[in-house]
Amino acid sequence: MAKSQAPQTNMDVDYVVVYKFEKRDRTKAIAQFEKLVEALSKVGLQTEVRNGGSQSVLLFVKVASDEHLYGEVYRSRVRDWIHGVRAAAPPKETREAIDSEPLYEAERLRIIYQLITNPVAEGGAGITPKEGEWEDVQSIFALHDRAYNDDWIKKWSTSYFLKTEDLDEIRNRFGEKIAFYFAFTQSYFSFLLFPAAFGTAAWLFLGHFSAVYGIVSCLWCIIFTEYWKHQEVDLGVRWGVRGVSRIEHKRKDFQHEHIATDPVTGEQVGIFSVKKRLQRQLLQVPFALAAASLLGTLIATCFGIEVFISEVYNGPLKWLLVFIPTGILTTTMPILSGILTKMATQLTEFENYETHAAYEHALTQKIFVLNFITSYLPIFLTAFVYVPFGNIIVPYLDIFSVAVRPFAEHEKQLQGPGADWAINPDRLRKQVIYFTVTAQIVNLGLELIVPYLKREGASKYKKFQTERAAKNGGAAPALSANDPPEDAAFLARVREEVDLEVYDVTTDIREMVLQFGYLSLFSVVWPLTSVSFLINDWVELRADAIKICQNMQRPTPWRADTIGPWLDSLSFLTWLGSLTTAALVYLFSNDGLGPDGSPANIRAWALLLTIFLSEHVFFVVRFGIRVAISKLASPGLQKERRERFLVRKKYFDENLKGLERLPKLKDISEQITRESLEEDARRSSLKESTMEERFWTRQRGWKETVSVGKDLIQRAEVEQSPERKKEL
Amino acid sequence: MAKSQAPQTNMDVDYVVVYKFEKRDRTKAIAQFEKLVEALSKVGLQTEVRNGGSQSVLLFVKVASDEHLYGEVYRSRVRDWIHGVRAAAPPKETREAIDSEPLYEAERLRIIYQLITNPVAEGGAGITPKEGEWEDVQSIFALHDRAYNDDWIKKWSTSYFLKTEDLDEIRNRFGEKIAFYFAFTQSYFSFLLFPAAFGTAAWLFLGHFSAVYGIVSCLWCIIFTEYWKHQEVDLGVRWGVRGVSRIEHKRKDFQHEHIATDPVTGEQVGIFSVKKRLQRQLLQVPFALAAASLLGTLIATCFGIEVFISEVYNGPLKWLLVFIPTGILTTTMPILSGILTKMATQLTEFENYETHAAYEHALTQKIFVLNFITSYLPIFLTAFVYVPFGNIIVPYLDIFSVAVRPFAEHEKQLQGPGADWAINPDRLRKQVIYFTVTAQIVNLGLELIVPYLKREGASKYKKFQTERAAKNGGAAPALSANDPPEDAAFLARVREEVDLEVYDVTTDIREMVLQFGYLSLFSVVWPLTSVSFLINDWVELRADAIKICQNMQRPTPWRADTIGPWLDSLSFLTWLGSLTTAALVYLFSNDGLGPDGSPANIRAWALLLTIFLSEHVFFVVRFGIRVAISKLASPGLQKERRERFLVRKKYFDENLKGLERLPKLKDISEQITRESLEEDARRSSLKESTMEERFWTRQRGWKETVSVGKDLIQRAEVEQSPERKKEL
Repeated sequence: MAKSQAPQTNMDVDYVVVYKFEKRDRTKAIAQFEKLVEALSKVGLQTEVRNGGSQSVLLFVKVASDEHLYGEVYRSRVRDWIHGVRAAAPPKETREAIDSEPLYEAERLRIIYQLITNPVAEGGAGITPKEGEWEDVQSIFALHDRAYNDDWIKKWSTSYFLKTEDLDEIRNRFGEKIAFYFAFTQSYFSFLLFPAAFGTAAWLFLGHFSAVYGIVSCLWCIIFTEYWKHQEVDLGVRWGVRGVSRIEHKRKDFQHEHIATDPVTGEQVGIFSVKKRLQRQLLQVPFALAAASLLGTLIATCFGIEVFISEVYNGPLKWLLVFIPTGILTTTMPILSGILTKMATQLTEFENYETHAAYEHALTQKIFVLNFITSYLPIFLTAFVYVPFGNIIVPYLDIFSVAVRPFAEHEKQLQGPGADWAINPDRLRKQVIYFTVTAQIVNLGLELIVPYLKREGASKYKKFQTERAAKNGGAAPALSANDPPEDAAFLARVREEVDLEVYDVTTDIREMVLQFGYLSLFSVVWPLTSVSFLINDWVELRADAIKICQNMQRPTPWRADTIGPWLDSLSFLTWLGSLTTAALVYLFSNDGLGPDGSPANIRAWALLLTIFLSEHVFFVVRFGIRVAISKLASPGLQKERRERFLVRKKYFDENLKGLERLPKLKDISEQITRESLEEDARRSSLKESTMEERFWTRQRGWKETVSVGKDLIQRAEVEQSPERKKEL
Repeated sequence: MAKSQAPQTNMDVDYVVVYKFEKRDRTKAIAQFEKLVEALSKVGLQTEVRNGGSQSVLLFVKVASDEHLYGEVYRSRVRDWIHGVRAAAPPKETREAIDSEPLYEAERLRIIYQLITNPVAEGGAGITPKEGEWEDVQSIFALHDRAYNDDWIKKWSTSYFLKTEDLDEIRNRFGEKIAFYFAFTQSYFSFLLFPAAFGTAAWLFLGHFSAVYGIVSCLWCIIFTEYWKHQEVDLGVRWGVRGVSRIEHKRKDFQHEHIATDPVTGEQVGIFSVKKRLQRQLLQVPFALAAASLLGTLIATCFGIEVFISEVYNGPLKWLLVFIPTGILTTTMPILSGILTKMATQLTEFENYETHAAYEHALTQKIFVLNFITSYLPIFLTAFVYVPFGNIIVPYLDIFSVAVRPFAEHEKQLQGPGADWAINPDRLRKQVIYFTVTAQIVNLGLELIVPYLKREGASKYKKFQTERAAKNGGAAPALSANDPPEDAAFLARVREEVDLEVYDVTTDIREMVLQFGYLSLFSVVWPLTSVSFLINDWVELRADAIKICQNMQRPTPWRADTIGPWLDSLSFLTWLGSLTTAALVYLFSNDGLGPDGSPANIRAWALLLTIFLSEHVFFVVRFGIRVAISKLASPGLQKERRERFLVRKKYFDENLKGLERLPKLKDISEQITRESLEEDARRSSLKESTMEERFWTRQRGWKETVSVGKDLIQRAEVEQSPERKKEL
């Protein structure tokens, strides 16, 4: 692309702050800008300003003195240690701490970003983009490392597998949070190999809805989920971030009811009553129900229409009418789910969480519910409504015939589905294939192409605009006019990056989790599912890399020790899979469709029993697998344990130094000299000693105890058998 | 009792070591005894020996120097801190550590006991009763504190409720493990109040098998289980033992396959391959099955006979024959379960666990399975076999008629259960009542009376023996003959305590858990269950206190932060309850028994659906309750958090002292003097500076950045709208 010709240097710029002032009047804007620059320089950042065009200036920021940065790094590392993220405290000497564990790029960028955005109280500049007094600060982002990006893409697009080193590389550049996404997708991808192979075999030899495949795929899902949990820990330790999720980041928008002193820290903190939040959280239930019914009815209606038109109706314009439902869905669905997502977000904000983690968690749950409905409901309808109850329901679709009759030449074709109409057993498979192949491809395409077009369009529009401006006001110079020539190319590139979107990794994770859902829930319908996913994900991994490099601003590197709440979604889908798979297998085994196309002889109790058993087998197996996996050796955990042990040992030695083991008493007890005995006799003769004292002075020192014991034993030996005595 | 007349003093004795030498010959015994005394005195213990009678001597042990003891205490506390049981390290100065947190009796006794029994390598005397070279050491136990015991029993038997202080008292005397049992039983007791009240109401107004009662009781079970988990943590912190279960105690009998260096500690440790153990653990499955089928068949047979004789057969001798099954059960069952328990123990030993905790856990699971079968199977049979399938099965019981015919006067009475025979709907209730009332009372009685009789018998026998000995060998003196008169009473008491049994708290816990099982599984059959339990447990608590004080040796105080594996059993029973209750309610609701006495119109699918739903509602509700309870304020946890926080704060301050916040750079950036500018100009003129350097030197210091930014903004303002310009 054009960019790659641009010089690769980033001019040592750490961050670019985009300051947009279109909304403000001149003087205010200038005053605010001054405040901004001062705030930044106060925390030890050097600044350069350039023209950003379209009512904005670009403020380049870099750390002025490494010493200062190291101080920050050191502070953050100590904080980590305090929160138990690292076993040992970093060496007291800053310098040596940095040398012993060199700073990696992501860490550096993270700390500088926090330096800019953290509240002043915590030693930051308190710049909060688009918020409060800083709403003019449009964005704060680091510049892409072109050279690295190009290598990255080249390397990945030519290699089949990603090694852990590749992931380390990502972690070093883009931070752990993004690295975890890639790690997850990668291990998911490599796990897919097995079901892909097995699926193909099943597809060839076992036929559809084979119980064997169902069991294997459920097993695989469990193993994958549990193994990933295991791997997360390992990676967390490898990247030294295990436990960071425990470090709580307060939300700025958290509204407290009243101030109270924290019983733990003794600080003044805002409190929001748990009870109240619980009440607000209960709103989730009606919300979920409303969303479900709303989306549900929409999907169900379209589903009905579609079935009716494609299978019952055979009047004129059929070719056209078949597209109605698709049309409705593709138009209304995005809007609807958009609205619902917005509502979900507002609801979560209303629930007013204290920490980012809690907020994220709550939001993810809601989003997951929405996605669950939109992604899986159609298939559920086909599998568990259309097929079993088709013959009962479909006739009622006839109500549409009223609407359609005008077109009908003669009555009979619309006498409704009677003898002639039969359930289409292929519908389910077709649908699954659609969702697992077509949809995935389309998705992938959109992800890559749309933003590209957007970008191109935007830049074209801009050029046109500036040209137009140049035409009717000769005065107005091109943006780059007064850039120093040697910076021109660089600045041009920066201005491009300003317009790029911000990357949100969670959407990508969600995509993967939902995909996994199809596998665990429905792959028994079409065993080739995982083959399609295998291919798709190989591309996906690369596509995401390209996306991050070219369509997005360089993401701020955040830390994470997990893929977050989505982990629960995984477990949930795995569990649900054990139900659906069993149900599907029972309903459709050996395509057991009766003459009328509906599954032959379904017995409710048998179906329920199947599900019930499969679920409980699932519970047991999962427990077993968990135990087994927990037994697996984990280099990461081992490393961690070793570190902790060493730390402990150190403390232990320190503390018990000088505390000698053997008591001094022993020798005393030895020296029973004649004097001491007499002395003792004398003392006991004057009756001032207590009963206890006398008890313990009868035998002085262990030797005496032994001798007394000796003749006790001997006498006992004699007593032992009076009989024997008599005999003598 | 007689004892209470004896002087209350324990002569400051810490432990009594009973040395029995009947098996050995004189010289060996003496040598070994010498070794024993020496070993004890080596670790700083003072000794006194007395005659124990019947081939044994009593070795009294007490700590010689408090200093030494304090050293041990200090060491153990540091170890706790290292293992994260306590937040902060005890003060460096031993003395002051003890003063700041005084030693309580249980702690003292525990540490002395460890001093006696720990291996020499760990600084103990390595005395292992009944094991290896110390097999002559019959037992090591502390003496009862009569004064306290009497107060204890008096206090409890006169108070309705136990306060936490009472539990603290127990903890101080008998250690946390026993305290936890009492705490559990107490909170279980107080939780019982509600179901007792509600149960009575249900019994009066709702009739049997009421769904409402079922739901409430399930809810109650969940809340109790979860709440107890919550409380455990709290108590653990209150007693400063939270996390002690994490401190691993190696088992002596652990056999390693090969020695290897521990990757963590670098020590040489014995390894036993996990795989091998897993294989051995798999033996549990056949064992469980075998045990189940064995006990199952036994119970089922007796059940069959009983049903047949009581309900089908009506020949002569019926009054006698009815007792056959009971007879068989009462004779064979104890033997059988005894054997099975033994096998379970051996199996667990064979599994060869490394730590006591793991061993305990594995054993408990097996024991629980056995108890589960013996306690609940009979009721399961009645509820889910006899009632639903009675009419089908009972006729086949006729095979017995062969055996019985001889007695039969005429044919008809044995034509088998046809029209005349009907399921006895009361059987289930009768059975539940038997298990929840009769059995409980019997149990309680046995617990108290049997050991009492035993004790009396034993002492009688002893007296008789000694008298006999005295008769036919005048030489043989009474035991107490050569006791110093003032110790006589004390020694007599000690000799009594020697013969007492050793208390094992787990059996008592098991009893409670099994009782809880009846409540969660079957109380819907007879809502008054919990009333019976309420009364029973009030007595139980006191009875156990008496038992410990009078029928048992003083238990060695061990630490614990939980009731252990039984917690899982609780959760399991709660879960299973959600199934059985639903099933029972469906099967018997409004005594829905048809004309033939068997439940009318059972539909398999409906039954399954009921169970399925109830189970999943259970899952959801439990999750909800867990969340809610986790939100509850926990004074214990808060205390802990505060401590940890303070420790952190201390470290943090220590580490960041001397790391100043603001960078030095700021002032530098201010001083832009004329020279510096010229200087700069000169430098840049000679082209030795890099592109990056030049980029960053264009604006020196933030003030300059501001001024440049200023006119950028102003110019932008002008460019903004060329249109406007034209108008001018």
